[in-house]
Amino acid sequence: MSVLPAPLNPPDRVLLGPGPSDVSSRILRALSAPTIGHLDPHYLELMDEVRSMLREVFRTENELTLAVSATGMAGMECIISNLLECGDEMIVCINGVFGGRMADMASRQGIVVHKLEAEWGRVFDLAQIEEAFKRHPGAKAIGIVHAETSTGAHQPMDGIGELAHRNGSLLIVDAVTSLGGVDVRIDDWGVDACYSATQKCLSCPPGLAPVTFSKRAEEKMAGRTSKCVSWYLDVSMVRDYWGSARSYHHTAPINMTYALREALLIILEEGLDVRFARHERNHRALRAGLEAMGVSYIPQHSLTTLNCIGIPDGVDDVVARKHLLEQYGIEIGSGLGPFKGRAWRIGLMGESSSERNVMLVLSALESALTRQNVSFKEGVGPAAAQAVYGSRD
Amino acid sequence: MSVLPAPLNPPDRVLLGPGPSDVSSRILRALSAPTIGHLDPHYLELMDEVRSMLREVFRTENELTLAVSATGMAGMECIISNLLECGDEMIVCINGVFGGRMADMASRQGIVVHKLEAEWGRVFDLAQIEEAFKRHPGAKAIGIVHAETSTGAHQPMDGIGELAHRNGSLLIVDAVTSLGGVDVRIDDWGVDACYSATQKCLSCPPGLAPVTFSKRAEEKMAGRTSKCVSWYLDVSMVRDYWGSARSYHHTAPINMTYALREALLIILEEGLDVRFARHERNHRALRAGLEAMGVSYIPQHSLTTLNCIGIPDGVDDVVARKHLLEQYGIEIGSGLGPFKGRAWRIGLMGESSSERNVMLVLSALESALTRQNVSFKEGVGPAAAQAVYGSRD
Repeated sequence: MSVLPAPLNPPDRVLLGPGPSDVSSRILRALSAPTIGHLDPHYLELMDEVRSMLREVFRTENELTLAVSATGMAGMECIISNLLECGDEMIVCINGVFGGRMADMASRQGIVVHKLEAEWGRVFDLAQIEEAFKRHPGAKAIGIVHAETSTGAHQPMDGIGELAHRNGSLLIVDAVTSLGGVDVRIDDWGVDACYSATQKCLSCPPGLAPVTFSKRAEEKMAGRTSKCVSWYLDVSMVRDYWGSARSYHHTAPINMTYALREALLIILEEGLDVRFARHERNHRALRAGLEAMGVSYIPQHSLTTLNCIGIPDGVDDVVARKHLLEQYGIEIGSGLGPFKGRAWRIGLMGESSSERNVMLVLSALESALTRQNVSFKEGVGPAAAQAVYGSRD
Repeated sequence: MSVLPAPLNPPDRVLLGPGPSDVSSRILRALSAPTIGHLDPHYLELMDEVRSMLREVFRTENELTLAVSATGMAGMECIISNLLECGDEMIVCINGVFGGRMADMASRQGIVVHKLEAEWGRVFDLAQIEEAFKRHPGAKAIGIVHAETSTGAHQPMDGIGELAHRNGSLLIVDAVTSLGGVDVRIDDWGVDACYSATQKCLSCPPGLAPVTFSKRAEEKMAGRTSKCVSWYLDVSMVRDYWGSARSYHHTAPINMTYALREALLIILEEGLDVRFARHERNHRALRAGLEAMGVSYIPQHSLTTLNCIGIPDGVDDVVARKHLLEQYGIEIGSGLGPFKGRAWRIGLMGESSSERNVMLVLSALESALTRQNVSFKEGVGPAAAQAVYGSRD
């Protein structure tokens, strides 16, 4: 290599895609604190603090709550690999990319997957799930996505845990795009295993996957007849590092733990309910603005953290997103799967969920439409959003 | 949680254990640059730069060179899961913890493991390996640890690749504690797959696992009859994100990529050969000092990056390490497995490999021995080390 790359200089961005979201300077400072050892007594204390705060944010008393040393999808793989083994049956609810991914992951390990499918953008009702349990009485687990990042659909969770348990099944929940932005109630909902990611509503850089397991999940794991197929993700060993034994398993991503700890502190300082209300308010304002501009939402029940909208007729997807990125420094997400070229995903997660960003992205979208000579009533979008902010809740 | 944890304030440490090693402030600054998206055009450029620099450091032209989005052991798991499938036979050379771990990982996936064992601290010679291939002519791969972190043994690599290929086998190498500190020559040695970690001789925080695959390895993977058991580590998909297709697979640990890029830049600015000579010189000085104090080395061929030594008679392991940590802020490593309580591991890796640290740890060890009333000739250790620094190479 004759010429070495130039000094690092990432561009200024406003991250309004489906993740990562903006990271506050306070978290970036924590991230860059000097690295210490993964068995340093001080580091072990930090791990304990992270566990306690994760329990708060997950709204659980689950002893077995920790951060997997990899990004969100490793959390999904950790839970599937540990909770189920080759030959086990599992129902997977699929209404977007991430349900499909769960099915793929499970199948690779010889888990027998029964797919319960719904149209992308729709959510599941209890009757459909009950029906699935009738068809598959041997299911040891059901997997469902609380916040489907590919469609913005917000799955109602009431009653699913009870239904699963009545059918002798564990409930696995994907809360990647909800944890820390939308209410996630592990214990109240009877969730047995849940995974999330740091770079969405926790507003931390990507690199860790918070997970939690119920007592019922622990019992299922204790009864395994085969080892977890993944050594790296084997909770029977990872828990001895996070727990009182402190046995070395692998070197943890120390600095990411600093960052996650700071992110959790920020969340608990704000307060979960206040934080959820902030996400809800900014979502309502954005939605009012977009709908006033004639833009429609794709999901039946939209998340407040992620807005999946149809691309207005006559708009070139790539040209518009390029305009946003280059002229405004704003990243929004493209559509996935059947929505490729047909949808945008605007995230308002964690630090990114602010009045400033709502008004900014509406202006930027107006600019993008104008550039493409798409007709719309100028100013009505921002005005509708302002009306939400101006009103008393 | 009624009381939130205090602000982050990790103690000052000098990291002279088996990893993590000290991280320069330049890398910590890179780590804390603002997060951008994992599909941002600028981020994709950074990935390309990381790939090019990783190839330099691995001394390879391998197209398929990238950083796995998790810590070092996920690199081991990535290579085993992708290169081999259920029913494949593999020879694993075990002379410490990490060979044993490779065997464990492979067995979990139904790979038929043939163990070739040597005493901990010893290395393998070509005759032993040739014999193993005679006993197991069906082996599709042989796994060997170049730098055994549990014993400090430095495995000579000459001829192993040729032997493997002559027997129709791939060569898998663990370079976790060597890459960037000791010469690793992927192409010259005929290595087909190699993994490392960021927190050892690359002197970056833990969080990524550099890996590289030869053309021969790619052919083996192309001929798989089953999917990789791990979705997260499936190279057939991960490569489409690192390659020109840029397909979304998972959200990469953005800020860790910033840090790794900076670490690689620092290494190439220093120059690989200069860097290896620095590690060698500091190792010789430490070794001279320790041996003058009557301390003996455990491995047959010691790494220059990690010094595994016997704990002097009459010294309490835990008390001594606590003294080093609390009075000097120095972390050294304890012994693993059969060496627990009998060995220390002193790392001089990357940023940590300096004359200052050699002199400091010798002084600290003298202090620890004095506190425990162990008799030794004061001053001879530091003097012997100084003699190495005073001499011309």
